[in-house]
This record gives sequence, structure tokens and C-alpha cells, in this order.
Amino acid sequence: MRYGLIGSSGRMGKEIIETFKGHDLVLEVSDTGIFRHGEPEIIIDFSNREALKTAIEMAYQFGAGIVTGTTALNQSDIADLRRLAERVPVVQSFNFSTGINLLRMILKEYSSLLEEFEAEIIEVHHSAKKDAPSGTAIMLKESVGRDLPIHSVRTGGIPGDHRVFFANEGEVIEISHRVISRKVFAIGALKAAMFCAERENGFYSYEEVVRWMQKR
Amino acid sequence: MRYGLIGSSGRMGKEIIETFKGHDLVLEVSDTGIFRHGEPEIIIDFSNREALKTAIEMAYQFGAGIVTGTTALNQSDIADLRRLAERVPVVQSFNFSTGINLLRMILKEYSSLLEEFEAEIIEVHHSAKKDAPSGTAIMLKESVGRDLPIHSVRTGGIPGDHRVFFANEGEVIEISHRVISRKVFAIGALKAAMFCAERENGFYSYEEVVRWMQKR
Amino acid sequence: MRYGLIGSSGRMGKEIIETFKGHDLVLEVSDTGIFRHGEPEIIIDFSNREALKTAIEMAYQFGAGIVTGTTALNQSDIADLRRLAERVPVVQSFNFSTGINLLRMILKEYSSLLEEFEAEIIEVHHSAKKDAPSGTAIMLKESVGRDLPIHSVRTGGIPGDHRVFFANEGEVIEISHRVISRKVFAIGALKAAMFCAERENGFYSYEEVVRWMQKR
Amino acid sequence: MRYGLIGSSGRMGKEIIETFKGHDLVLEVSDTGIFRHGEPEIIIDFSNREALKTAIEMAYQFGAGIVTGTTALNQSDIADLRRLAERVPVVQSFNFSTGINLLRMILKEYSSLLEEFEAEIIEVHHSAKKDAPSGTAIMLKESVGRDLPIHSVRTGGIPGDHRVFFANEGEVIEISHRVISRKVFAIGALKAAMFCAERENGFYSYEEVVRWMQKR
Repeated sequence: MRYGLIGSSGRMGKEIIETFKGHDLVLEVSDTGIFRHGEPEIIIDFSNREALKTAIEMAYQFGAGIVTGTTALNQSDIADLRRLAERVPVVQSFNFSTGINLLRMILKEYSSLLEEFEAEIIEVHHSAKKDAPSGTAIMLKESVGRDLPIHSVRTGGIPGDHRVFFANEGEVIEISHRVISRKVFAIGALKAAMFCAERENGFYSYEEVVRWMQKR
Repeated sequence: MRYGLIGSSGRMGKEIIETFKGHDLVLEVSDTGIFRHGEPEIIIDFSNREALKTAIEMAYQFGAGIVTGTTALNQSDIADLRRLAERVPVVQSFNFSTGINLLRMILKEYSSLLEEFEAEIIEVHHSAKKDAPSGTAIMLKESVGRDLPIHSVRTGGIPGDHRVFFANEGEVIEISHRVISRKVFAIGALKAAMFCAERENGFYSYEEVVRWMQKR
Repeated sequence: MRYGLIGSSGRMGKEIIETFKGHDLVLEVSDTGIFRHGEPEIIIDFSNREALKTAIEMAYQFGAGIVTGTTALNQSDIADLRRLAERVPVVQSFNFSTGINLLRMILKEYSSLLEEFEAEIIEVHHSAKKDAPSGTAIMLKESVGRDLPIHSVRTGGIPGDHRVFFANEGEVIEISHRVISRKVFAIGALKAAMFCAERENGFYSYEEVVRWMQKR
Repeated sequence: MRYGLIGSSGRMGKEIIETFKGHDLVLEVSDTGIFRHGEPEIIIDFSNREALKTAIEMAYQFGAGIVTGTTALNQSDIADLRRLAERVPVVQSFNFSTGINLLRMILKEYSSLLEEFEAEIIEVHHSAKKDAPSGTAIMLKESVGRDLPIHSVRTGGIPGDHRVFFANEGEVIEISHRVISRKVFAIGALKAAMFCAERENGFYSYEEVVRWMQKR
């Protein structure tokens, strides 16, 4: 695949380049500028709201699909992506790991049985991460299906821990996820890119990519 | 209810007596001897293999049901309980907490989706607990549905932690349970006793008690 | 010892009564009222700011020492206790466990070597605990010796978990304490009461009781 | 510095090459063979017992110091390194992280105060790690200063977690270390290499490198 990368100088950028070996990096957008030497079929975006706008422009320009993991998006960003998705395939998620998506499925299914328990989320990320709570924690809270406190710890170089607690007077259940290496998101982004390669258009979450992967 | 208690001087014995306030303790079997001043309708057993034999004898003698949480049972103990269950209701489980039974349901259902992950269990209990691995860890391993290592830590006064890990190169999922107070097992035993009160006979696990509780 | 108990109907009250078996409970102050049938030599207080005022009045009245674990005290409460300590022995602490006091010693000693690490505290307590952050977390932060975020989780029946994290880009150090049973605070209170029995007056922390215990 | 790298194709090899940017890689020993195009001043070894023998030969050959993090060494390997250390500086450790060395200092100093607690270690590493218990766990056990169980979990891609527990009937203290990225060992190896550059000979542990770093 010929691919473009938005946020190539960030932590995720390096992982994407390593994981997408064998594919053709024809476009790079980073702090240092825009470098293009070909037309991308798919654009991989792990940047920020501002750079995402550039990504969307380029998607229109080249008719390229977008796989975006940028967090801290607002309603208008999502609306822009949905509009683009009428033309090209778009996969948008706050978390491209298999583990978190399995946790979401478990929480969605068992939340009614866990109603008697009090619930909280603790999420831990590296100190450079500006947004809090994390996009992943917001997704997990939605899966639990009720309002609950999210505690955001920003410290050191931790890639991403999410811990969902259910407690009552006598016991505590914990359902957690820990990222060992950001490579796991790059692998998810690659799967999402392959998913897009088989589609004309549409707005998809990473959950649908996971389901598609299981049937293959 | 008129109830009998096997193992009344142990840690669980004290919790049972406190939780079963309002019910009539008519029979006690402990290290110090057998004390009886009535006929039990149900016998609660949290003891050991040897005392369980006494419990079964008394169940036959009084036509009483049995709720047993004694661990480290072998095939012949289970066979004895199943035989008794032709006459009276028997609830047998290695763990009477809602949390562990929810974990079993989650693990049984999601184990196929977790096949690509390596799995391990770490269980931690107080240093006086002789059996290892714990009966609960064995149940959780059965729910995962594959052979996996169980690490048994025996230290201090910890009531019971069970942690099931699924890991691959990039991420770790953890599904855990922690007992805050043994009272949680006594509450489960009480629910199981009420379950037995509505039945003539039969061999049941605590899972079925949990399901029955949800419908009420 | 003849002792008084402030907060006898709370969670700690029950633990104190059980741990102080063999000693003479001559005074009880709780939600239901004041019950006295003797003169206390020592008053044990695990209540709240308002009830602590009653405890201090009685300490003056009977010339009794005070062992107080009430949290959420302010400067004026501490000043009242220091004034009382000119007359009788007073042991005041937010945590009467050996473990937390060892953690404080470790943190105080090693904080300079840990300067390059970012530090955070996560503390978890039962949902009925009103004050946040916990008094223990405040003590641990003082031992670390710098400003740092404290995340307070209030859920279920958890007696008290305190986790101090030091993280940099490549590694995380965690120094934690978990209460298995509130009995540990009652045992600490008893040691503090015995400490007071050997003193005329003075304002002491539980750390000094721990040091005294080691020399005996 | 002109340096040699033993184990260049392994996980640590890649981290060393990235961390030692700016220094001159003149010698590589890996599964694929020996590549040399200069004379190393220092040899960095993160391999296995067999390759370590090659490292020692080359150290004699070039008069180069050795920084070795290879685990699962036996007494005769250590004796060989000590003999070499009469000629050149040798830094040998099972763990080149600041965090673990701080843990060792804390454990060595506080083990007498923790005598009443039962102690255990749980260590978790990636499933390709053959040796168990880990060299680091063995070092931590030596620092605690008593015989204690070590539970070795081998799963997924976890770089290295070490958790030391002290528990009694009422409380648990945990002192733990988690590696976020193996880069932390490469940084330690670089510090050890700089330490060797200032010495003629001698057999040193990484603790001495940490002390030397603090004085600079």
C-alpha cells in the first residue's frame, strides 16, 4: 500500500513506520513540515486535532481512506470525519488494541449483572499526554453504561494502563488492560488500513475491524 | 431456618454464625466436639475432607440439605455428595462469591476470543491455607478451558486474590477478584441455604444459586 | 486498663472492643449517646472532629490520656490536642499500622535518591469515607517531601490501599500498603495505649510508639 | 568510545545500538557471526553463557573492559569474570536499572524491621525468557536476606516486573519495580561503560556505578 503518515515525528509515528515496513510511505506530515513524493491510498493519523484537519484535506485531495487514532476529538471533528466517510473509508478509534476492544465487549455485555457494584476507572499514561480522561477511558465508561469517576494519572513513560473496578462491601472485581509496547496500536492501525483497502467508503470503529479480522 | 454448622471454630465458622443471625444454630461440629440441641433442616459445611464425611452422615440422619464450601475435595468426595443429592438438595462450590462466579461466566464466554493470548493465574491466600492451587483457581482454569500455570502464593492473612492474565507481545489483559472480607462467602452460603429450602433434592453448583437469585 | 471509647458504633469501634478484650470499657460515646460506669485512664478515639471535642473534654475531666486516629483534623484541632498534651499523654496519628509507618520511614529516607522520578499517590477506601485525600495519603506525601497529585478512589468496602508511584521514562517503582483487616489499627491503638500508660504527658505520633515497641 | 556488542541481534542488542548512538560500534557478535572492523575499548554483553565466553576472550585480546548483563551465570562464569577483572574493568549485574538498585538498597536496610512479616517475590517476564527465577529476583532475595519463595511467571512480551511482598495477619506491604522499556537497561549499560572508561581494572557491580553517578 502507498500510505501517508500524519504525526510522523511523534511516539506513534515511529511505531507506524516500523510496523508498516514493506508498504510505501509516500506522504509525511509532522512538526517539521509536509513531505510528499507520491499519492497515498490510505492516510494514517496519530496526531492532534489541528493536524487531523490537514489529514482530512489530503484524504479529499487524493481520495484516500483515513485510519485515525488521534484522541481529544470533539463533536465537530467527528462530524467532519463522517462527512469524509461518504467518499472514502474511515476508521476512527481512541484505541487500536485488541485487548481494549475485548474489554469493551465484556463490559457492555456484563454491565447489567454488575449493577449492584460501585464502579470506577483508573487510567495511567505518560506525563506528556495532555488529554484527560483518556479517550480509551471514555470508551470504557460508555461500555459500562453508567456515570462513574475516572482517575487520570500522568507520570513517567507509561504507554497506557486502564483499570475498571467493580466493588461492593465484600469483594472487588477488576478488569484491566496494560500496553506493553505502543507497537500494539500500530499493528491495529495496519489491520484497519487493510480493512479500508477492501471498502469504497463508510465510517467504521476499530471494533468492526476486529470482527472482520476474526472472520478472515 | 434450623441449621447445622461444620467447622464452627474456623475463620469461616465465625462469619457464618454472624451472617446467619436470626436463624437457629442447632448443631455444631468443630475441633472441640459435636454439640446438638435440635434437628437441622440445612447443614453448612466449611471444614475439611474428614469433617465433610461427618456432615454427610448427619445430612442422611436428619434429611437435611448440605451447602458445602470445603475445598481440596477429590472425586470420591464429589461422588458421595452426588449420591446424597438423590435424597436432599446439595450445593457444592469452591467459591461462594458473586464476583468469582461472574468471572467464570466471562472467562467461559470469551476464552475463544482470547485464544491467541498466553494465559496464567496468580492466586494469593493466607499462609494457613494448606491446599494449592486453590479450588477457586482450579474452577477459573476450567472456565478458561485450557491448561495453564497457576502460581499459588501463601502469605499473611490475605482472604483470597485471584488474578487471571492474558498476555501477548504487546498487551496484557487482567481479570481479577479480591475478597475484602470472608463475609462475602457467608452471604453466598446463606443464599445457597435459601435456595435449598425451596428444593426436594438435587446436586447444584453456586452458579445455579446466582442464576436463581437474579430471577427472584 | 480502664478505657473509654469514642465512636463505639463505627467500624473502628467494633474492632477496638474486640482487640481490647481483657481491658475494662468504662465509657462509650457514640451516635446513641454517652454511657459511663467508671473513670477511664485512657480514651481511645476513632470518630470525627465533633466527637473529638467531647473526647478532649473528658480527657481533662478524668485526667485520662488520649489515643486518637480521627482523620480530617484541622490546625485548631491539633492545637487543642497539643494543649491537652501538657496535662496528659496524647498519641495522634492518621494511621496506626506498622506498615504505613515503615513506608513513611522509607519514603523520608529515599526521597532525595528518587528526585529524578515523577511521583503520584493513589489511595482507595470504602465509599462511606467522607474525607479525601485520606489522612494517611497526606502523611505519605509529607514523607516524600514534595508536592504531588493524590488520587482518591471511594468504592465498595475497601479498608485502605495506599500506593506511592515513582516513574520516569523507562521504569516505575511502587511502594504500597494494603490493609487486610481494620484490626491492624486497633492493635496499633492498643500499643499506643500501653505507651501512654508509661508517660505523664506529652504529644506523640504513632512513629514514636513504633520506636518504643522495637526497644522493648 | 569504540565498543563491541555481544548479542547484537537480541532484544537488548537493538536497545544498546540505539542508546549508544554517537559511539563507534566496531565489533558485533551474534547468531549470524562475528563482525569486526576496529578494536573495541569496551565490550557490552547481553547474551548468554556461551557467548559470554567469546566476550571474555575478546576482552583479553583487545584489553577491553566488559559490561555484562547476561543472566543465568554460574559460579565458574563469575570466577572467569573476576580473573579478567585483574586486567581490565568489569561491571557485572543481573539488572542495570536505577529502580531495582534502589529497591535493593531499601530492602537491605529495612529487612530487619520487616522480620515479623512473611515475604514472597512474584516476578513476571516475557515467555521467551528461559531462566527462572530471574537474576534480578535472586538479587532482591539476597537483599531481603532470608529464604523466601519466588514465583516466576513467563508470559507475553512483558519486559520485567518484580514485586516483593511482606504480609502479616492484618496488612501487606509491597515494594515493586516495573520496566516500561528495555531502554532503561541500555542506559544503565552506557553509564557502566563510562564508569569503566575511568578505571584500569577491577570487578564492580552496577550498585557502584549508581553511587559513582550520584557523586558526579
